[in-house]
Amino acid sequence: MTAASTPLFLRACRGEATPRAPIWIMRQAGRYLPEYRAVREKVSFLELCKTPALAAEVTLQPLRRFGFDAAILFSDLLVPLEAMGLEVQFTEKGPGLPAPVRTPADVGRVAPFDPEARTGFVMETIRLVRKELPADVPLIGFAGAPFTVATYAIEGKTGKTFGETKKFFYQHPAEARRLLALIGEATRDYLLAQVRAGAQAIQIFDSWVGVVSPDDWDDFVLEPTRALVAAVRASGVPVIYFPNGATTILDRVAKVGADVVGIDWRLPIDEARARLGGAAAVQGNLDPSLLLGPVSVLEKRAVDVVRRGGKRGHIFNLGHGITPEVPVDNVAALVAAVRGA
Amino acid sequence: MTAASTPLFLRACRGEATPRAPIWIMRQAGRYLPEYRAVREKVSFLELCKTPALAAEVTLQPLRRFGFDAAILFSDLLVPLEAMGLEVQFTEKGPGLPAPVRTPADVGRVAPFDPEARTGFVMETIRLVRKELPADVPLIGFAGAPFTVATYAIEGKTGKTFGETKKFFYQHPAEARRLLALIGEATRDYLLAQVRAGAQAIQIFDSWVGVVSPDDWDDFVLEPTRALVAAVRASGVPVIYFPNGATTILDRVAKVGADVVGIDWRLPIDEARARLGGAAAVQGNLDPSLLLGPVSVLEKRAVDVVRRGGKRGHIFNLGHGITPEVPVDNVAALVAAVRGA
Repeated sequence: MTAASTPLFLRACRGEATPRAPIWIMRQAGRYLPEYRAVREKVSFLELCKTPALAAEVTLQPLRRFGFDAAILFSDLLVPLEAMGLEVQFTEKGPGLPAPVRTPADVGRVAPFDPEARTGFVMETIRLVRKELPADVPLIGFAGAPFTVATYAIEGKTGKTFGETKKFFYQHPAEARRLLALIGEATRDYLLAQVRAGAQAIQIFDSWVGVVSPDDWDDFVLEPTRALVAAVRASGVPVIYFPNGATTILDRVAKVGADVVGIDWRLPIDEARARLGGAAAVQGNLDPSLLLGPVSVLEKRAVDVVRRGGKRGHIFNLGHGITPEVPVDNVAALVAAVRGA
Repeated sequence: MTAASTPLFLRACRGEATPRAPIWIMRQAGRYLPEYRAVREKVSFLELCKTPALAAEVTLQPLRRFGFDAAILFSDLLVPLEAMGLEVQFTEKGPGLPAPVRTPADVGRVAPFDPEARTGFVMETIRLVRKELPADVPLIGFAGAPFTVATYAIEGKTGKTFGETKKFFYQHPAEARRLLALIGEATRDYLLAQVRAGAQAIQIFDSWVGVVSPDDWDDFVLEPTRALVAAVRASGVPVIYFPNGATTILDRVAKVGADVVGIDWRLPIDEARARLGGAAAVQGNLDPSLLLGPVSVLEKRAVDVVRRGGKRGHIFNLGHGITPEVPVDNVAALVAAVRGA
């Protein structure tokens, strides 16, 4: 592929100038789409994740409707955790682990796994999606970052104060680091398998890292995250690291070494880029709640994000996932505003 | 009172040097204390707030046990909201409003109130506590900041994504500003009544302001918050503003004009002070989860906060409220570590 024919999204990932900011949105395959809800009426969330034809279908749905500049695999952060050896149950109230990691001995229950053998449905989904996608729309694979996956392993559910996680860290620092390293290694294998299956970029979601203090970031989070990012980058695909809620410590986030840092909506994206010291391209960062308001306000704020993010090393996105109650017409208006900016 | 006999806490509020950092902790009168749980076994949360003898008793409990350098009124952020005209129900699942503010017309249901007439029990609690407190332990009164109180008014409960609040802001910006101004004016009257009753400092909790974008901060949050802080400061008492989750925009927070800014645990407190540009004293900022871990780690991190916070214009506190599962012995160890640092 020549440089000129390299998809916009990948050029922005590499920090290059683009004629316009490429756009995709987190959770673009989701409940705000009537065609997604139609699929979900027939199968459970977990069945959807584990049925490649259906997972590929919902991955492609937002592309057909909005023509985003990238697709993202439809799956769940906890799919690999289950493959690592911890049982996960999905209920209406969210994911739950009947037997979370609470003692040093429990860490022994977590192990790397063969991604094709244990999560072959994910790799098959990727292969199916790649067959359908046009050449200028790359497919993003993803996984949770070691810290975020560890919070599920330890809390046994979506955390609130994350007291169990931190208590484990403080009481058993060596075993906590061992757990994070194990999760990181298993995630590395899982993501490299996604790349072999056809993923052209990887996003690592650190959804809960905003709850750690800078000391805990330094002591526990940085090293396994940095190692994971480096291992995936070595495969040749760009890596986007999204540390939700950590805009306050972007100087530390820069040390992770990602090609792109996802920025939540809590800081103007030009200020975020400056705090990163130019170490990475940026992705973001419109407040997803703007999609609930009048189109005039949405357009004005979206254009401002494009202006601040610039057209070099900037991928337009929301600062967090789109929510189910968003009207689809507003998403169409957003895409048009960003493309016209 | 001569300068030398001014309580440590008030000297630190004024940005002065102190021989040691004064210490109190957010939610120090709370469920981690067995003597608090004993009171709560007999009365509901709301009865406790509305019974001055009991509210004064639980306000004083942590002082007796730990000898903190300040007391804080026992009450709830939603007590004045109810007095403003919106019915609030307290259940096991948290506060709920049967009829939240969802339309411009609903804003008309919110009105300033006579604090002695409608919330006399709060003022009586303050008077009772002041009679019991030693001269060197000031009493802090408090209220929620306009934005945080508005989220309860609009969401009707503790928010999650705060989509209703933001939707109201974007759809009805003038009415949103009117609502925030009304809440701010009612809160001003309420806090000035607390000062007249004997509160010697005021803390304004902006518990949920971390969810707003910088644009929304500029458009909606700054002005009513700044006006409230200025009005309370004009009474002569220092004002602490605690913008939980807003460590990422401390340059903007400085414009609120508080004497002291409470810092959550997401940024080292010396970096926070620098980002504030020296505009205010600082309060904080130990991660409350450290109280769940080994005392050795707790002590080390607490001493580090004292070192970073310094002994000029620094009030030691947690970066968020103490949680119910904290062992009381760990709180004693924390107080000793801070006093010895």
